[in-house]
Amino acid sequence: MATKWGICSAGKISNDFTACLESTPDTEHQVVAVAARDLDKAKQFADHFDIPTAYGSYEELANDPNIEVVYIGTIHTYHKSLSILFLNHGKHVVCEKPSSCTYQDTEEVLQVAKTKKLFYLEACWSRFFPLHQDVLSMVSGGDIGQAKSVIGQFNVCSVDVERIKYKKLGGGGMLDVGIYPILLTNMFFKGRPESITAQGFLSEEGVDLCGSLILKYSNGRIATLHYNTEVTNSYNFFHIMGTKGSIQVNDPCWCPTEVVVNGENKKYPLIPVKEKYTLNYINSQGFHFEANEVRKCLKEGLLESKWMNHEDTLDIMFIMSQALKQMGVSYS
Amino acid sequence: MATKWGICSAGKISNDFTACLESTPDTEHQVVAVAARDLDKAKQFADHFDIPTAYGSYEELANDPNIEVVYIGTIHTYHKSLSILFLNHGKHVVCEKPSSCTYQDTEEVLQVAKTKKLFYLEACWSRFFPLHQDVLSMVSGGDIGQAKSVIGQFNVCSVDVERIKYKKLGGGGMLDVGIYPILLTNMFFKGRPESITAQGFLSEEGVDLCGSLILKYSNGRIATLHYNTEVTNSYNFFHIMGTKGSIQVNDPCWCPTEVVVNGENKKYPLIPVKEKYTLNYINSQGFHFEANEVRKCLKEGLLESKWMNHEDTLDIMFIMSQALKQMGVSYS
Repeated sequence: MATKWGICSAGKISNDFTACLESTPDTEHQVVAVAARDLDKAKQFADHFDIPTAYGSYEELANDPNIEVVYIGTIHTYHKSLSILFLNHGKHVVCEKPSSCTYQDTEEVLQVAKTKKLFYLEACWSRFFPLHQDVLSMVSGGDIGQAKSVIGQFNVCSVDVERIKYKKLGGGGMLDVGIYPILLTNMFFKGRPESITAQGFLSEEGVDLCGSLILKYSNGRIATLHYNTEVTNSYNFFHIMGTKGSIQVNDPCWCPTEVVVNGENKKYPLIPVKEKYTLNYINSQGFHFEANEVRKCLKEGLLESKWMNHEDTLDIMFIMSQALKQMGVSYS
Repeated sequence: MATKWGICSAGKISNDFTACLESTPDTEHQVVAVAARDLDKAKQFADHFDIPTAYGSYEELANDPNIEVVYIGTIHTYHKSLSILFLNHGKHVVCEKPSSCTYQDTEEVLQVAKTKKLFYLEACWSRFFPLHQDVLSMVSGGDIGQAKSVIGQFNVCSVDVERIKYKKLGGGGMLDVGIYPILLTNMFFKGRPESITAQGFLSEEGVDLCGSLILKYSNGRIATLHYNTEVTNSYNFFHIMGTKGSIQVNDPCWCPTEVVVNGENKKYPLIPVKEKYTLNYINSQGFHFEANEVRKCLKEGLLESKWMNHEDTLDIMFIMSQALKQMGVSYS
């Protein structure tokens, strides 16, 4: 039986995710309804993707009995309340990263999911790419000896984009792009670091324009990470280095198709979307991997994905909130 | 008239530097003598390179009236005393990086050079590569808008090498490899950072196995740097990112031949050495650029190179010493 999706918000990222859902066989994924605060926008989105129902409010989506799982693609500041809304209406939830804007809010969301015994996933899509999963398998298998160091960055010039500029919209670089090198680090160095050190620059609006993090883990493992909202044409990479070898995940490291393992180049093709769909972001075809993982988990009755479980969500939010605190940013 | 060189120490790095000197016309560079603490080693080196004189002590080299400039290629702990020895004997000095093991010692060396009115260069060879000088020119010319961020690393698995392992030999990663991303950063972000933040891991011997630095400069500029002595096959890069574009100096970034400027690949060939010479380190042909800069400065009567002046030497040592202090390493 197909997995029945509701799409919450008709923005750019929802477009890309839905394009992937609508490019799989109907027996696997079905989009039942889409909701936006603006009904016309929802209708337009529904027309484009041949979705049967369009709602002008998120509550209507929550009340639709045909929906099994909701994908939340709104701006950050709605992630918490919408996750809780859908969970309280008995829907499984796949919420775009970040899980919320604060550690406390994330704890609250996860508690609701636990109480309701529903599936919840922070949609860190990078972690479902077969390339990253293969790299993790190589690292775990000792192919590079003991993994000692990671280094990575994710920079997108977005300083003038409203949702990045203003704090009330969940603005700043950490929650938008800084999270990526952190969520990749957390694939390889699990749990919480022994120490978190962060430095960055804030805008006049009080959000973080850029930041650098040093995370120290047990057994001499260290992560050196950077993100920036002011620079252009950056090469966004992620490297994992060990005592016997190194692995370089090439740009775009958050949705990669190419990796260099001990000097040898390996390519990983994406699953294309139907020709009639246009994608907003690079390699958004990669949402296929995430959507298929959700389906797999739901079929197996799991409440978490092993590739991105609730503990990971909390650990990543812990790192971000500690680093933001050091930099002088608070969303609470 | 040729520049007349003395070579202090007959180790691997002196081999490579001398191979470059001996591959230029005799009218440009002449190696007059070589000295090592072991006379046999000096003789062997002299035979290999057809150097007229071999000395079994550094004092003899200092006393040789035919020598104009001495290249010091010893381990770090001798850099200070030997620089002062040669300066006090009226020789110009080109001393391998680091200038010394402490900020105070470096100040002392530079003071002697100043007093004696002699040329002194900390041999940060990377800075004389035409590739880096062109990149600096592009960055200064605004080709990437305002330069906002650099990121780089230099990792070499050397944890079991004696001179890296033991503190009494000037061991640890910072002075050996960590200095490179710092000296490259200092090409683009001049002067001292507004803040220096460092974290790393120390060995049981009390030296730094690895370290990460975050340097904040004025106008929202930030450097994110890493070095490591425990990992293998690392891709050692250096990126400069600006508001209008980015530049990636590819591995090996400390002696590079390839750079990507706003997506366009540019190559920079090296000057080969004579076929009969073997080099120990990658791209050591690049010593040609440094040697030629020294000759140019001496001919012009300069006491510093504009590409690596005494202030740069002090600023780099300032960053290293502050970072080492934060990490709990002291050589004094």
